[in-house]
Amino acid sequence: MQEQVVSPPQRISQAADERWMKQALDLARRSIGLASPNPVVGCVLVKDDRVVGEGFHEYDRKDHAEIVALKQAGENARGATAYVTLEPCAHTGRTGPCANALIQAEVGRVVVATGDPNPLVNGQGSERIRNAGIPVDVGICQNEARELNDGFARHIRTGMPFVTLKAGVSLDGRIAPAPGKHAADRVAAPVMLTGEESRSDVQRLRHASDAIITGINTALNDNPQLTDRSGLPRRRPLLRVILDSALRLRLDSKLVRTAQDDLLVFCTTPKYERQKALEALGVRIEVVHGWLGASRVSMSQVLTRLGQLGIANALIEGGSQVNAVALGQNLVDKLVLYYAPIFLGSTAVPLLGSLEEWKWPVTRTTVQQFGRDVRIESYLRDPWA
Amino acid sequence: MQEQVVSPPQRISQAADERWMKQALDLARRSIGLASPNPVVGCVLVKDDRVVGEGFHEYDRKDHAEIVALKQAGENARGATAYVTLEPCAHTGRTGPCANALIQAEVGRVVVATGDPNPLVNGQGSERIRNAGIPVDVGICQNEARELNDGFARHIRTGMPFVTLKAGVSLDGRIAPAPGKHAADRVAAPVMLTGEESRSDVQRLRHASDAIITGINTALNDNPQLTDRSGLPRRRPLLRVILDSALRLRLDSKLVRTAQDDLLVFCTTPKYERQKALEALGVRIEVVHGWLGASRVSMSQVLTRLGQLGIANALIEGGSQVNAVALGQNLVDKLVLYYAPIFLGSTAVPLLGSLEEWKWPVTRTTVQQFGRDVRIESYLRDPWA
Repeated sequence: MQEQVVSPPQRISQAADERWMKQALDLARRSIGLASPNPVVGCVLVKDDRVVGEGFHEYDRKDHAEIVALKQAGENARGATAYVTLEPCAHTGRTGPCANALIQAEVGRVVVATGDPNPLVNGQGSERIRNAGIPVDVGICQNEARELNDGFARHIRTGMPFVTLKAGVSLDGRIAPAPGKHAADRVAAPVMLTGEESRSDVQRLRHASDAIITGINTALNDNPQLTDRSGLPRRRPLLRVILDSALRLRLDSKLVRTAQDDLLVFCTTPKYERQKALEALGVRIEVVHGWLGASRVSMSQVLTRLGQLGIANALIEGGSQVNAVALGQNLVDKLVLYYAPIFLGSTAVPLLGSLEEWKWPVTRTTVQQFGRDVRIESYLRDPWA
Repeated sequence: MQEQVVSPPQRISQAADERWMKQALDLARRSIGLASPNPVVGCVLVKDDRVVGEGFHEYDRKDHAEIVALKQAGENARGATAYVTLEPCAHTGRTGPCANALIQAEVGRVVVATGDPNPLVNGQGSERIRNAGIPVDVGICQNEARELNDGFARHIRTGMPFVTLKAGVSLDGRIAPAPGKHAADRVAAPVMLTGEESRSDVQRLRHASDAIITGINTALNDNPQLTDRSGLPRRRPLLRVILDSALRLRLDSKLVRTAQDDLLVFCTTPKYERQKALEALGVRIEVVHGWLGASRVSMSQVLTRLGQLGIANALIEGGSQVNAVALGQNLVDKLVLYYAPIFLGSTAVPLLGSLEEWKWPVTRTTVQQFGRDVRIESYLRDPWA
């Protein structure tokens, strides 16, 4: 990735640049759920130490963040510094190139958080702006900016979604009490290991995802909804994906009862009657290859298919088996584990079902407390690397 | 616990008080390993915004922290503010009462981080100083100060040691690869899950402990030394305690080969010959009650005995079985778990062997990253409550 080395004399103040870029990042965050499959982007135009224009990208409104900000600024854009969380585009897609718009508006300087993740176009926008005599600095708040577009980066580069595996875990690595325990609870709802703060953070994760994936055992045992209950607006519904080789999903499950073209079931064995019944209730069904005698849906095939459907961010919220397969087959890009202050003991359901020992190279780990729980986030693969 | 409510007009500046108290706490930390079985205490005397005397308690030098600081300050103590991490004593023990010494030195004000954990004497020192007309503020940096003397608090109140359970754990809650795996590694050394930074923090934990406890299985499998390799000075050797019902400890183990009256083995069944052989090599042996047909040493009896021996801080570094018993029998006061970025899979050795589900009321949890690992600390019981 080409990155401009920023020499101090060019800059007014690194601290000021970071402050404005953080404001642009906050704007970018407002486009989470509204920009996909495009990247989330925010832009702030600053002149004489005050904001003269700001914007973020919404897919449905077409205009990129820079254009929204430039329109707001009008004549004030001239000589302003543009803070953009992602390199301005140099190509004509649904809109004209943002690089040209910035040049035409005669901004005085452009500060970019990160280059484009697509190696084929990375650097072109910055180069065009520089060629017009406008200085461009790249790399301010780079990590923060990249994290916002992990899914876009992975999808644009490989066609596959960025896969996050989420789980709520006891301190001894269990995701549920021993089978047979809490039978009464399980009828009503799955046993909640984690607290309210963690569960609300999970809703944030779901909101940032295009699809959520789980296995049929979890669907049958927990009868979950798997919806985005963040309360935040989203352009496309969260696609709920069930790995259900033999089409055992119950017609009266919460998933089926709430299906509105947002429930996609992958099976390995077509069952005509069952399929018709589910489809009549608004469920989409696709048949993919299986393994272990077609008893398991191939998860890598499912992810490939989701990528084709424009899913850039996929969230796995599975049980022991799905977790073990996803990790064991190296399909996970990022882990988000919420450790709850409880021990469930050695007979409880393990985080990973049949997985044998497996090591991965962690690129970075961050921890945060949510109420009494601790969230550990870790990258297994950097989609920008 | 009696605590003085501090009214703002009395105080020069809360920020300044905290700054000086943190300096006193740093001094107190220097007495870790040197003060036991007494509490660790630090004292700073401040006059005209500069330090005129400072000290910390070392058991062998007898003088309490206040006395060390007063001697250093000499005449300068008059009118100074004394910052003390633990309430000055009002009784005559191996030394005269510190409260009297502060009064005689005519300090102008006394700031105390926490009252004495012993409810029978708590408040007496502060009261005596106040009765002499010197204002006393209690409660500055209280949590930090209490954490330093958790062991002292538990021991003085109950006669039992404060018990910390430490383990290095994979993200899926395993402490070692599946038995039979890594056989070659296990001959040389136990498999290291955690990184260097965590292991160095464990040495800090050991340094702050009076005794370290493990089971015979860990002793046989890992052949550990269980020594304090922090490099910091300590008054009493770290007592290494092995739960070994049938006296299976090997005579050529690292533990026995390094025994210098600091290796205490608890068994349930006296075996005369074996006992003599171990004792001849400098090992102390005690016979206690057992359970499960004397096949297991009673851990609660062991802890009671350690309390009698003046052990205020005990650290459990056990395997699955010892961990499960300690937690299951509610013998643990604090957890220190280092999560390493690795999965070991469902056939690996669990953190807790035979423990059935068990919930505990967490009072506070803190997290910290050590290299690639994450340490989760949690109190199960507050020894000051």
